[in-house]
Amino acid sequence: MNLSNSQVYSVIWHNDAVSLIDQTRIPYEYALVEIHRCDDMARAIKTMIVRGAPAIGVAAAYGMYLGAREIKTDKRDVFLTELEKVAVMLRATRPTAVNLFWAISRSMKVAYEMLGTVDDIRKALLETAQAIQVEDLQTCQAIGDNGLKALPANPHQLTLLTHCNAGALATAGYGTALGVVRSAWREGRLTRVFADETRPRLQGAKLTAWECAQEGIPVTVITDSMAAHCMKQGLIHAVVVGADRIAANGDTANKIGTYSLALVAKAHNVPFFVAAPLSTIDFDLTNGSGIPIEERDPTEISQIGETIITPTIGVDYYNPAFDVTPAELIEAIITENGVFAPKDLVKSKELQPV
Amino acid sequence: MNLSNSQVYSVIWHNDAVSLIDQTRIPYEYALVEIHRCDDMARAIKTMIVRGAPAIGVAAAYGMYLGAREIKTDKRDVFLTELEKVAVMLRATRPTAVNLFWAISRSMKVAYEMLGTVDDIRKALLETAQAIQVEDLQTCQAIGDNGLKALPANPHQLTLLTHCNAGALATAGYGTALGVVRSAWREGRLTRVFADETRPRLQGAKLTAWECAQEGIPVTVITDSMAAHCMKQGLIHAVVVGADRIAANGDTANKIGTYSLALVAKAHNVPFFVAAPLSTIDFDLTNGSGIPIEERDPTEISQIGETIITPTIGVDYYNPAFDVTPAELIEAIITENGVFAPKDLVKSKELQPV
Repeated sequence: MNLSNSQVYSVIWHNDAVSLIDQTRIPYEYALVEIHRCDDMARAIKTMIVRGAPAIGVAAAYGMYLGAREIKTDKRDVFLTELEKVAVMLRATRPTAVNLFWAISRSMKVAYEMLGTVDDIRKALLETAQAIQVEDLQTCQAIGDNGLKALPANPHQLTLLTHCNAGALATAGYGTALGVVRSAWREGRLTRVFADETRPRLQGAKLTAWECAQEGIPVTVITDSMAAHCMKQGLIHAVVVGADRIAANGDTANKIGTYSLALVAKAHNVPFFVAAPLSTIDFDLTNGSGIPIEERDPTEISQIGETIITPTIGVDYYNPAFDVTPAELIEAIITENGVFAPKDLVKSKELQPV
Repeated sequence: MNLSNSQVYSVIWHNDAVSLIDQTRIPYEYALVEIHRCDDMARAIKTMIVRGAPAIGVAAAYGMYLGAREIKTDKRDVFLTELEKVAVMLRATRPTAVNLFWAISRSMKVAYEMLGTVDDIRKALLETAQAIQVEDLQTCQAIGDNGLKALPANPHQLTLLTHCNAGALATAGYGTALGVVRSAWREGRLTRVFADETRPRLQGAKLTAWECAQEGIPVTVITDSMAAHCMKQGLIHAVVVGADRIAANGDTANKIGTYSLALVAKAHNVPFFVAAPLSTIDFDLTNGSGIPIEERDPTEISQIGETIITPTIGVDYYNPAFDVTPAELIEAIITENGVFAPKDLVKSKELQPV
């Protein structure tokens, strides 16, 4: 792990344990949390020490292995029953991100299909987690590069707006939306990133700003409510965001505020792109209405750091963590296997990873 | 001043001084700041101890009197020259709110037209400030009641969304947008207010939530980015906001985020109302493009209370305090003299206060 070359890895397998960048401490400090047990991994996902749909998938796959390591039996059927309980616990951490369910299912499939000893299954689960991690990094690099084909040709030098953090921190590395940003920066096609601060948890102000600052990419932080005003002034050439779950028709669940941003982008004819791995697409859902929306604790709204911002009595809160952007507001979905208009997304089905 | 009957007055003339509710301390404490000198009044306006376009107008009118009291001369022409300097200083505090300029101009006009002694002018300036204050309170009550004619007839029980604080704190009392809320509540037509928190300064979370809690009006605080998601679920029947300056065609400058909110309201066919006194209309501006937009300090974005939320180096900020909502997104403008479609606003010109 060497920060000097600007490589950020949210999940690191090291010394028979998982190290996570504690994303609740960024940008104040760069600290690693070492995870040895699967219930600690579940807690880390729930409390957002690790967050971002693809990173959660990687973390959950390692969580499956940590859980497998804790199951004290040599009996295959007993082991698999216990492993199902591990899967249930990990699935219960965050309801919206499909990558979580995808990674856990992949691990379970490996476990069921492995014919050797319990130890062989354990080993296969570790290899699966490592494979998911490596694949996700390669996937992000491919998404970033594919993004170059999707971005507007004019002007050559673009200003991109993003929401939340779909960066290296949210993935195994490089990022999805920030993968597109990184590739555009490398190719000299980017002048500046506008980062929505992304209330309530401020992932834009904290994480995206930090990632950009690490790499010297010029970044301007704005409040979420300023995006429309910026677009009206012609400051934004395109919007690129990540995704937590994409339905078969292209409807996309992502961080709360994404839908609002897509509406204001449409009103200004600013193209709106979703950058996500194929594993984010849930072909079992015909549209976005079936995506469960996680509601989180009201204190995420009423308190920022140590500062309470609302009256202590007589006030209610509503804190949905995600919203659904309808496909018609999305110009294209940028994946590792190409750029798809939402209506063509079904064509990517055969390309989807197992 | 009696809080038990829920009456909130942002500006109070008492013991030959102006008492302002320190709005930077709400909701943490209810504290009054006593202002004796006009440069302290200018500072109070600039630092937003007093804020809200109509309240700034009232405060500035008192500031003109305080300034007049400090001018040590009996000579009318010397006095008027010095009074012009007071006007210049007060005008420089906030560039966007037209009520500020309107109140100062009215005071200057009174000074020039008063034929008596310098002491007579001073007395007339105090009476003018008091008159502006009383008129604004009556104006707000009329706006609130006129709002009842503008709100959708169905359903009978409405949920209203508002942005920033256009309440009693922002006016001489009762409020403009919150005046409509108060009247609707009194008439049994309101079930709940959704309050955008209104980053960066959080006037919704702090001030609007506080005002509603004071009066027992059910209030739900959301982040600015959640409004579109709430509308999509049918939670919002109408939006009511205040205004800092309205051009002759109905284009409206108001707190940053208002434009974004108007766009998402239009996308959901949720009627969007502006509630403001006629003194907010600037008939010298044919449209909103000529309205100067105040940019405020970046720390309003990077720091909340004592909590710094962004990396300390490598990050830029853009902090426009207002945006302009085009007339075509506005269903109607609710004034003390009736409800006007933006295109009919010119008809209100003869009704405008001097």
